[in-house]
Amino acid sequence: MGTCNSTITLTTDFGNRDGYVGAMKGIMHGINPDLLLIDITHEVKAFDVAAAAFVLRQVIQYYSAGTVHLVVIDPGVGSARRAVALRHNEQYFVGPDNGLFTLLLETDTPDQMVELKAPSDCAVSATFHGRDLFAPAAARLASGTPIEELGTPFAKLKHLQWALPIDDEEGIRGWIVYIDHFGNCITNISRTLFEKRQMGRKTKGYAGSGIIRGIHKTYNDVPVSEPLMLFGSSDLLEIAVNQGNAADLLHIQRGTPVNIVFGDLPDGASMRK
Amino acid sequence: MGTCNSTITLTTDFGNRDGYVGAMKGIMHGINPDLLLIDITHEVKAFDVAAAAFVLRQVIQYYSAGTVHLVVIDPGVGSARRAVALRHNEQYFVGPDNGLFTLLLETDTPDQMVELKAPSDCAVSATFHGRDLFAPAAARLASGTPIEELGTPFAKLKHLQWALPIDDEEGIRGWIVYIDHFGNCITNISRTLFEKRQMGRKTKGYAGSGIIRGIHKTYNDVPVSEPLMLFGSSDLLEIAVNQGNAADLLHIQRGTPVNIVFGDLPDGASMRK
Amino acid sequence: MGTCNSTITLTTDFGNRDGYVGAMKGIMHGINPDLLLIDITHEVKAFDVAAAAFVLRQVIQYYSAGTVHLVVIDPGVGSARRAVALRHNEQYFVGPDNGLFTLLLETDTPDQMVELKAPSDCAVSATFHGRDLFAPAAARLASGTPIEELGTPFAKLKHLQWALPIDDEEGIRGWIVYIDHFGNCITNISRTLFEKRQMGRKTKGYAGSGIIRGIHKTYNDVPVSEPLMLFGSSDLLEIAVNQGNAADLLHIQRGTPVNIVFGDLPDGASMRK
Repeated sequence: MGTCNSTITLTTDFGNRDGYVGAMKGIMHGINPDLLLIDITHEVKAFDVAAAAFVLRQVIQYYSAGTVHLVVIDPGVGSARRAVALRHNEQYFVGPDNGLFTLLLETDTPDQMVELKAPSDCAVSATFHGRDLFAPAAARLASGTPIEELGTPFAKLKHLQWALPIDDEEGIRGWIVYIDHFGNCITNISRTLFEKRQMGRKTKGYAGSGIIRGIHKTYNDVPVSEPLMLFGSSDLLEIAVNQGNAADLLHIQRGTPVNIVFGDLPDGASMRK
Repeated sequence: MGTCNSTITLTTDFGNRDGYVGAMKGIMHGINPDLLLIDITHEVKAFDVAAAAFVLRQVIQYYSAGTVHLVVIDPGVGSARRAVALRHNEQYFVGPDNGLFTLLLETDTPDQMVELKAPSDCAVSATFHGRDLFAPAAARLASGTPIEELGTPFAKLKHLQWALPIDDEEGIRGWIVYIDHFGNCITNISRTLFEKRQMGRKTKGYAGSGIIRGIHKTYNDVPVSEPLMLFGSSDLLEIAVNQGNAADLLHIQRGTPVNIVFGDLPDGASMRK
Repeated sequence: MGTCNSTITLTTDFGNRDGYVGAMKGIMHGINPDLLLIDITHEVKAFDVAAAAFVLRQVIQYYSAGTVHLVVIDPGVGSARRAVALRHNEQYFVGPDNGLFTLLLETDTPDQMVELKAPSDCAVSATFHGRDLFAPAAARLASGTPIEELGTPFAKLKHLQWALPIDDEEGIRGWIVYIDHFGNCITNISRTLFEKRQMGRKTKGYAGSGIIRGIHKTYNDVPVSEPLMLFGSSDLLEIAVNQGNAADLLHIQRGTPVNIVFGDLPDGASMRK
């Protein structure tokens, strides 16, 4: 077994309260005691495929080639959805084929794809594929089993896609795609799109009950408790409050529209409605 | 030190917010830096011995021989309850003798039992036996110290037992013993008992505000948001809602009675009251 | 790389729901795959520097020489506060210089202090220093890089200090500095101060809506649901309820004053107001 590719990250909606994660880890260490298992999160909202994809998009770039990402958000457990293992950009991905992987990898056809077959030597529970199907496959991949031995090739992942912002010369209309633990509200507006459309003009953003002027570099560029817009650690436009909770303060939820307007703007409006 | 028996699982009601778990891990790695420490959960409800036993019952079968399970749910810390280390089915268990281990192992007399003596070389806090007494014992066991060196034998564990279902030819009356993170409601009715009593007849289940017909194989056998009964990953009868929260939807709590009735049933009743 | 000093503990207010912790771990394992990463907690209340210091004060003594403690509670991220690495009592500390380390170490001048310089080979995000600045520094320290290679010396940490109790011959007036997961209320009154002032006299404590007589050794010295005072695992006076939640029951919050009175006391008062 190689030592380079023995890391498995775990992302699920199982919570940290039951024994489900512990059972999966026991299974994986039983297959290979030297695995390094790293919890990304088990607190994805139940069945929230898009949130899990968003969390992982910020993480996988920091893991080395050969890492296996085990992702079990599985509203369709026991149904006809495929169980898959993927290889893409020299990393591996194992989980149900429910659209999450297309949101994560932004392709329907990663470098290599196999549909997992149930291991012949054990009964597979109809309700806990995480333990009986996905965890063993991840452990085998991380221990050097070639992906093609885990199943049979197939052609195309189930497709989901991120809502794209609408943009023209006057502005950009996007949406909040994720709200983090601090209440920072992350939009689907990339720095690239923003800069292409801004062309050096003044900027005003509308989201929830907030009207926010300008783009800042860091939270502390505005006074404590004031809202601001900035490009966060993932280079997406983010609405935040310095040392505060923007989602609560500005009444923003996932899906809330965000309007960015460019140009010389009248100054009458206050910072918040 | 052997490499086969160096895994310790941790199950407590300490939460993940304070430093209690971190202190225990420091102690254990101080005794043996090569230990593999796996958190099962630290979010057992405070002092809830039965919930901890239920969580662990679903986990220990997936861990290899020699694994040490450290379980600290300790409403009686500092009182006269024994501090114990046990060996059973080639695994080890360390924690307070408060009935949890009989619920977990379903025996009052596991293969080997010792009452822990306080280590002579350090003061034992009257309030934090997890750190001062149980963690060092677990680390020593996992590092190869024979269990008999950790304390003195005793005869019988404190006994608690699961409420058993009541059954006759017409049906089974059980209880909800655990509600998981998804709101799935797990009963104390085993597949074995169920099949013995059903004898091929139609089945109707009553629990909380729900009346549920038939037994399904997997959540997706019913439409989204509909309730169903199935045998879950632990082969106990479970009441669930496809992609929903059965506990919330059907007003079920731990301890709620579950009535299973067999036979040809009139069809007037709706799926839910 | 040495094997003795490869442990890093992690303490943040990032929560366990987003990918921030997972990104930091990927970075650190990328620098050194053999690091042992131990989560102390990621559930410190957002920006609560004092709570993080209190949690760590109960933990660091149980970790061996050479351990690196990565502590990222960073209300001032992106502002002018220093990013630092410290050596003190043969352990290392990495994080923002916001006063937390003086609360933790009780000195403004630990054994060695450097201000971190941004690594030249990568862009440093203005919003996520945990990932881009602190995690790499911690991984390098734990892998044997001398602390002086990580930055430039400076003279004095930003100073915060714990509120000290007020005491005289008649009693002690302190405050609740931390409330743990069980609702135990921990004061800033040390056993040493208490014993110096008590001089064998009877003791009565007032906190929130509670009046509590005497000092006990362990929770079970009083009946279930009764309040008591005792010295907890950190040798600070603690107000607790046997198998109950003292903070809820006695209406105690962080900052609530605690009055300890010594002497022969009239007996009219009930246990609780």
